[in-house]
Amino acid sequence: MYLGSWLSRLSRGLSRPIGKTTQPVWGSLSRSLTLGAQRIPEFSSFVARTNTCGELRSSHLGQEVTLCGWIQYRRLESVSQLRSGSSVGSAASVKKILCEAPLESVVKVTGTVISRPPGQENSKMPTGEIEIRVKTAELLNACKKLPFEIKDFMKKTEALRLQYRYLDLRSFQMQYNLRLRSQIVMRMREYLCNLHGFVDVETPTLFKRTPGGAKEFLVPSREPGKFYSLPQSPQQFKQLLMVGGLDRYFQVARCYRDEGSRPDRQPEFTQIDIEMSFVDQTGIQRLIEGLLQYSWPDDKDPVEIPFPSMTFAEALATYGTDKPDIRFGMKIVDISDVFRNTEIRFLQDALAKPQGTVKAICVPEGAKYLRKQDIAFIRDFATQHFSQEVLPVFLNAKRNWSSPFAKFIMEEERLELSRLMEIQEDDMVLLTAGEHEKACSLLGKLRLQCADLLEMRGVVLRDPALFSFLWVVDFPLFVTKEESPTELESAHHPFTAPNPSDIYLLYTEPEKVRGQHYDLVLNGSEIGGGSIRIHDAQLQRYILATLLKEDVKLLSHLLQALDYGAPPHGGIALGLDRLLCLVTGAPSIRDVIAFPKSYRGHDLMSSAPDSVPPEELKPYHIQVTWPADSEEENAAATPSKNLSS
Amino acid sequence: MYLGSWLSRLSRGLSRPIGKTTQPVWGSLSRSLTLGAQRIPEFSSFVARTNTCGELRSSHLGQEVTLCGWIQYRRLESVSQLRSGSSVGSAASVKKILCEAPLESVVKVTGTVISRPPGQENSKMPTGEIEIRVKTAELLNACKKLPFEIKDFMKKTEALRLQYRYLDLRSFQMQYNLRLRSQIVMRMREYLCNLHGFVDVETPTLFKRTPGGAKEFLVPSREPGKFYSLPQSPQQFKQLLMVGGLDRYFQVARCYRDEGSRPDRQPEFTQIDIEMSFVDQTGIQRLIEGLLQYSWPDDKDPVEIPFPSMTFAEALATYGTDKPDIRFGMKIVDISDVFRNTEIRFLQDALAKPQGTVKAICVPEGAKYLRKQDIAFIRDFATQHFSQEVLPVFLNAKRNWSSPFAKFIMEEERLELSRLMEIQEDDMVLLTAGEHEKACSLLGKLRLQCADLLEMRGVVLRDPALFSFLWVVDFPLFVTKEESPTELESAHHPFTAPNPSDIYLLYTEPEKVRGQHYDLVLNGSEIGGGSIRIHDAQLQRYILATLLKEDVKLLSHLLQALDYGAPPHGGIALGLDRLLCLVTGAPSIRDVIAFPKSYRGHDLMSSAPDSVPPEELKPYHIQVTWPADSEEENAAATPSKNLSS
Repeated sequence: MYLGSWLSRLSRGLSRPIGKTTQPVWGSLSRSLTLGAQRIPEFSSFVARTNTCGELRSSHLGQEVTLCGWIQYRRLESVSQLRSGSSVGSAASVKKILCEAPLESVVKVTGTVISRPPGQENSKMPTGEIEIRVKTAELLNACKKLPFEIKDFMKKTEALRLQYRYLDLRSFQMQYNLRLRSQIVMRMREYLCNLHGFVDVETPTLFKRTPGGAKEFLVPSREPGKFYSLPQSPQQFKQLLMVGGLDRYFQVARCYRDEGSRPDRQPEFTQIDIEMSFVDQTGIQRLIEGLLQYSWPDDKDPVEIPFPSMTFAEALATYGTDKPDIRFGMKIVDISDVFRNTEIRFLQDALAKPQGTVKAICVPEGAKYLRKQDIAFIRDFATQHFSQEVLPVFLNAKRNWSSPFAKFIMEEERLELSRLMEIQEDDMVLLTAGEHEKACSLLGKLRLQCADLLEMRGVVLRDPALFSFLWVVDFPLFVTKEESPTELESAHHPFTAPNPSDIYLLYTEPEKVRGQHYDLVLNGSEIGGGSIRIHDAQLQRYILATLLKEDVKLLSHLLQALDYGAPPHGGIALGLDRLLCLVTGAPSIRDVIAFPKSYRGHDLMSSAPDSVPPEELKPYHIQVTWPADSEEENAAATPSKNLSS
Repeated sequence: MYLGSWLSRLSRGLSRPIGKTTQPVWGSLSRSLTLGAQRIPEFSSFVARTNTCGELRSSHLGQEVTLCGWIQYRRLESVSQLRSGSSVGSAASVKKILCEAPLESVVKVTGTVISRPPGQENSKMPTGEIEIRVKTAELLNACKKLPFEIKDFMKKTEALRLQYRYLDLRSFQMQYNLRLRSQIVMRMREYLCNLHGFVDVETPTLFKRTPGGAKEFLVPSREPGKFYSLPQSPQQFKQLLMVGGLDRYFQVARCYRDEGSRPDRQPEFTQIDIEMSFVDQTGIQRLIEGLLQYSWPDDKDPVEIPFPSMTFAEALATYGTDKPDIRFGMKIVDISDVFRNTEIRFLQDALAKPQGTVKAICVPEGAKYLRKQDIAFIRDFATQHFSQEVLPVFLNAKRNWSSPFAKFIMEEERLELSRLMEIQEDDMVLLTAGEHEKACSLLGKLRLQCADLLEMRGVVLRDPALFSFLWVVDFPLFVTKEESPTELESAHHPFTAPNPSDIYLLYTEPEKVRGQHYDLVLNGSEIGGGSIRIHDAQLQRYILATLLKEDVKLLSHLLQALDYGAPPHGGIALGLDRLLCLVTGAPSIRDVIAFPKSYRGHDLMSSAPDSVPPEELKPYHIQVTWPADSEEENAAATPSKNLSS
């Protein structure tokens, strides 16, 4: 009985197929994932096997090995079903076990590493030159009929994958994602702890609600009416640690945010949480650049540092967003001056207003790739979400469908536009007019939509192997509340220090104050954000009480701490789930989390959240308020029925 | 202006006094804490300082340095109070700042490292040969009057320490404890991840309640009547990861347990959580021994491995507990045979019963150190807590207070007892009679009480520098329920695999089955426990449903997972807080946690848990049930009263 490629997944996760092939490449993959010059981990210490399948090579020829793992697939001639099984040693039963056990059964085999017969080598597999002459085989656990086949090319619905997460985890992609996550975090820890003297401090998750913490989960305590809150971040604790002289803190911190149903958000998530004393914005930025460069996976191109930086104002004006994807152009251009004398009415109207502008993006080869219905979709989107008019302009392309305004564009405008926007033949310009921020935001969205459309048609705009980091800085410290424009709220959080050169404005025009906040953007996604904090108690009180009208009592401990020798300090938090999602190219953050919740916050495997018997609520002095207008109303009417609903 | 030892705490935590001295030893301390042969971390990268105070040596002579930190104390001649302050550069204002700023103010100074004047060197301090000639000083933050002095020899109540935790963290001991904790955990990660290929996987804390999970905190969801639970451990997830082929899992896992008010327990705590596939009990034990040896602090004696092992039965018989402190003797001896023909009535009575035994411990020099009232206390304790008679016997000592039974001990009994228990002059024997387990348990408690008493009198029994690890194995798989002795419950948890040689007993005498469970004990404290798990779905169902009468529906996902090719697996969890508490010699686990809760579960700094306005409870469909017989009753007398019974 010989074990060849068909037992290739013995010791899952260390010998896994990639994509549609069944090549056991995890062995080499896990090697390449290990830390460059460091020693290779012993994957078989303390256990019943001598080796993982994926690590066997022709250098092991002649060795007796013991392997443990799952039966992944068989050569056609040996496909059969195992009915029952137990440990065996004889040569006859070896064949029976290995040929009759159901796929995904767990077996242990002992045998000798031998060369594959001439002609049967597979040079594409790291293990392709060898196979095992099996002496003994033991069925450790037989597998029942699976709800789906564990093959990566078999498409499963996400609901099914989440319901049987323990089976989904056997897929190559999930193994890769979770192992890579572990290794990246480990390298981050090495960088912070071993290279730069950071202290890993665990902070509580059972805490007190924060002002305006409407998105915090509550945890009832055994004291009537008293609740803990699960905090959205360790923000207060990290600042208190600085006051406490811990100096350089980090934590891979579990955070909680109850946002109800939101796609691609998780009620619990993880951030790399960092705080330092005596640091400025540049210090934090250099630290993080070094951190990402050090922990970046070896199978990707190295991270180049320092990262480029852009002000919030520039990001908005050029990309229409505070998280620009700078892997491609299509920048927003202000073309107000081109149209000072236009005859096009809606441009005239816009420019007549004090804040009026005309803006445009140039979609490369848009005339070639975009279709009439794309433009219709884009214009609809602009009307519906921004109440804005968008004008497609084909300056050099001959298109058989006309823009209603095109004929009103004068020749000198046309030439100036071409020059300003470097328009090539087949390019398309999308033009809008209105107030600066609104026009930019709209074009920022259209820029991404056009990129999606072009890529759907086969144009490569955003190289998935390219990782473009960007710092966005100089955010406003405050924004006006949408529902009450005379009131201010923090653009990020109330502990962000103002830019020193803007402090005088706090007392006159606070909305013009820039904060010492910085966001880290990767390929158009915000993966981190932080700030230099206020370390002056008086300033913090003024901002909280006078400008933000917050209840300072909830933060009295923090304000008091600032009075007692708080050092200047600042920090940052990186969203680990999002970062891993981008690094692995996963379609959702759920693919880089072992046991994620569905977008409605459910654990589909265990059915959490779940009903709780009323007697278990009693110690917490709470009871359920059943919605009055539902069927549960009747159930709530009688105590006993309460139990069953 | 010169900075000598009085600015020794610049850059707190890297230059801290020990105990009653004010020597800046943290610099060398933090060095000795760093990983043996590895590079020394850069403690001043990315920040405004060039060095930490504690690291300056005569090798830095002549260098210009910038230091940041807290003013810790001054020489007497320069004590004064600072009224206000700002950044300065002139030589005159340097002196003003450094002399007038209140203690614990934060300053930044620049100057040159020079030798101390002859005669002023302090050879006991690593920095004792140098001081700083200060050129510029900047007051970064002045400190208000503190609620207590930050000096380690100043005794504070724990309530005050917890209320101002951020100040308490500046103490040498808290800095040491938290930095050591970080480093030990980092080394554990290196061992698991880098040396042995473990994968760090984060598991959810918002989960579903487990059967019998009465100690689980609840988290209301936005669905009426549905709750998440905060799990007591990632037990289910770690097993599901094994089914998912993750093979070697670990996590520094936050766990939750709502036990109400219990001293030295925390509602959230941390465990080093480990699970492996294809492993047996020995494999886990060798892994953990290697882990502790590798991560053990350099300033302690190295850990010797393997650890000794003892069966539960032996631990009970010899030490009267399942977590023996084997640093000292006073073992329990069964002396039933000595008293077969005794005239002492209560021994006669005990031995007449089928399970009757006579047991004793020998307290070395007990006759010399223990007082009459100690014995009275011990006998009272035995009566009150165990309804047991305890007899002090002085065989060779002449004491002027007599034992009521001593005269009834016959000469041959006396000689045999002396021989069996190796009694020396001045030793005291404590003797009791009764059923084996009860007698052992009582003597196990008395053994520790006598040790406390002897140590109070100056006898060193338990060397605090000695770390005695011990495996305790072969626990029973089930115990009978106290409240209903015909029913069984798991001795540890229902996923523990039975000892293979006892499996047949499951169907006949399940109470006799031993489980593959192992506890790790350090100096008499349980610091870890684990087991080989059941990987056979049928066996798991039988134990849950038939033997334990549990509702298997709550665990259907786990049972199903075992059907789909679950590998044999096992694991362990180490209690990190307890372990650190023992390593640092801290009096409470609160001293190794940055922000612990009080024993009543309160955060005394922020006053968590806290009241929550009713409108914030609404989205979670819960309301508070105010206790009817309290003042809150009136509060409930509102329109919502009909709902709050």
